[in-house]
This record gives sequence, C-alpha cells and structure tokens, in this order.
Amino acid sequence: MRRKEFQLHGEQLEDVTAFLHEMSYGFLATKGAAEYPGVLPINYVYLNDALYFHGSRIGEKMNTIKLQPEVSFAIAKEYSLIPSYMSDPFYACPATVFFKSVLIHGKAIIVDELQEKCDVLNALMNKLQPEGGYEPISLEHNGYVSRVGATAIVRIDIDSMTAKFKFGQNWKQAQLESIGEQLALRGKELDRETVELMQRYCPHAGTNQE
Amino acid sequence: MRRKEFQLHGEQLEDVTAFLHEMSYGFLATKGAAEYPGVLPINYVYLNDALYFHGSRIGEKMNTIKLQPEVSFAIAKEYSLIPSYMSDPFYACPATVFFKSVLIHGKAIIVDELQEKCDVLNALMNKLQPEGGYEPISLEHNGYVSRVGATAIVRIDIDSMTAKFKFGQNWKQAQLESIGEQLALRGKELDRETVELMQRYCPHAGTNQE
Repeated sequence: MRRKEFQLHGEQLEDVTAFLHEMSYGFLATKGAAEYPGVLPINYVYLNDALYFHGSRIGEKMNTIKLQPEVSFAIAKEYSLIPSYMSDPFYACPATVFFKSVLIHGKAIIVDELQEKCDVLNALMNKLQPEGGYEPISLEHNGYVSRVGATAIVRIDIDSMTAKFKFGQNWKQAQLESIGEQLALRGKELDRETVELMQRYCPHAGTNQE
Repeated sequence: MRRKEFQLHGEQLEDVTAFLHEMSYGFLATKGAAEYPGVLPINYVYLNDALYFHGSRIGEKMNTIKLQPEVSFAIAKEYSLIPSYMSDPFYACPATVFFKSVLIHGKAIIVDELQEKCDVLNALMNKLQPEGGYEPISLEHNGYVSRVGATAIVRIDIDSMTAKFKFGQNWKQAQLESIGEQLALRGKELDRETVELMQRYCPHAGTNQE
C-alpha cells in the first residue's frame, strides 16, 4: 500500500495537520492480552504534537493501555466513489474510492497532571463545541477540580505518522481530466471537493488548462 | 462502556444489519508481530453472515492476517454533537456525541474459491455502485477469470458482534425531550435524524406527546 500514489510532498504535509484538526474522531487500536485486538471509535484532539482523548478512569480501555501502551490510531474520510463506468464500459475492476487517511503509531500515556488535563479538555471543547457557551475548564473553579480529577485523559506520544491521500496520483493526465469532468457533472456530495483535491494532489492534473 | 444506555433490544437488532449495509467502510485491526497493532480503513460488504473485503494479494495486510487471523473490525457513524449548554449553562462536562458503532471479532480467512470471490466482488459492486453500469463479474467471461484470480478476498468469520447505539438511552424523559427540541430547532446536518433515533432507541422518549 506504500505506493507512489499515496506519497505527500512539501506543503501538502501541512494538509495532514489540517485534516487532524478537521476530523472529530478516529479509531484507537490496542493489542492487549485478549485474543482479539481492540479497536474503538473515539473523539480526539491533536495538541502540542500529540494526540489526546478522554474517557472513564475505569474500564477495559484503560486496563489495556496500561498493559501494552503501544497503540495505533487511524483517522479516515471517504471522498467520492469513482464508478467503474467512468473509465471502462465493461469491466467492474476500475471502480475505486478516493480518501484521506492518517495512521499514527505511538505510546499511550495516562495523564495525571491536572493542568495538562484542563488544557486538553479545553482543546477538545474548543474543537467539538467551537461556539462556546460554557465556563472554560480551570482549576480555579472548585466545581471543575473534582470533575477533571474524575476524568481520564490519555496522551499518545507519536512515534510515527503516515498519511495516505488517494486522489488518482498514479493516473495519467487524460484519465484524471476525464474523471474530474465526470465527477463535476455528477455533482454528488463531496464530488466538487474531490475534484479540487485531485487537482491539488496530482501535479500533472489540469496542466493543459493553463 | 457496556452500560445500559448502549443495549439494544428486539427489533433494534435488525437495525445493526441495516447499519452494516448502510456504511461503506470500517476499520480492520490486526495484532501481527509488529510492535504496534495494525489498523486501517477499508471498504467491506456484509454477506451471508460474514464480513468481506478485498485487496492486493501481496502486502503487509495479507501477511499479518496469515500470521494471526484473529482480527477486529469496527464501524462507526457520528450523529449530532450535543453541546454542553443544551443541559448546563456553566459546566462543559455534559457535552457529548451520539453515535452508532459496531464491533466485530472474528477469524480472517483468505478466500481461494473463485465462485465465492465472484459473489463477493458482485456484492461489493452492488453496494458501492448500485446504479450498475458494468458487466456482472462471472467466470464465464475469460477477461474476468484472470482479474478475479489476481484479487485477494478476505472473509471474516464472525465470532462476536456487539453494537453501541448511543442516543441518550440513560437520560431521563425530561432531558430527552429538552435536548430533542433543541436539536430540532438547531437543524444542523443529521440533527433531524438524531432526534428520530433518540425516539426510536429511548422507549420513554416523547411518551407524553401520545
């Protein structure tokens, strides 16, 4: 899967951070001692080059992390489904889907320091409830101190982060243009955004229009 | 996390199957031999009580599955974010999010039988390209035989499947009604659907309207 079509260059790396801020949840994978790996959807915030999430202080998730802190975290957004007939009138094989995804490997650390916990909770609130409408979380409010203490915060210290943004990077220019035109005509949800991302991530797309 | 608010009853179990058919992709988690668990987004189809996906015959994913076939697969959809101020003018703590999620544990089996592979590929196409526009995949077409042979199909034989549909099941009636009214007024994407799901999954919701 580490083909040329997925590699990002230069300023596009900044797009990965923007994507982490845009998405509200990802999937935490754990190894643990059980027969099956753990995987669960969870809201997160990307802050100070780390990934944070919160949860209950007791429970399977926390026990698993303590047992084996090496975790993975995946975030993905599906863009346009590209039907086969846009490139081939007979075979189903060309059907594909464009997407953005990020994969993080890291160590999950349970955060005890109250101020860091407050900072994370404020960042989570700012992300998921940007319109405000609450008293910022602070240790100066006695009512918050006990609530923050009762909340578990986990920080993933990131060892590696790789991104796959698939928007036809391995296609020839003629195919990119043909599919882009057909997506623009179709005009389903995310089609317009997909066409813009094809032009952004495929250096040779649309060059004959200049 | 296995609290009462997440339990499904009776006909609601059918909703899990409908959800599996509705969603186009989930997250496959693997243990493997590496330091970190594997987790990647992947399109799937739920067919004959099993979960199937396809991919390249060579690659890390297939090697990991052969090494340790016990895998997990999670599918989730986020519904309305419920801002804290809908229930509390001061504290941020009541902020939450409603969602549907399904977690599957099972054994990943690489499918070799060509007819089963055709059936899966047709089911995947029917799911992701329901408008058709291709010749159905069949071993009677010589051109398809080699293409089907070159595609890896994985079947997850399901050992357990659990669902968490969180729509305020642990809330009191007054809170459900208040939040439902506020979501209906807000009218953001998925708010209307969220209110319908609150009424569906919370047996005591809206009873005083009858």
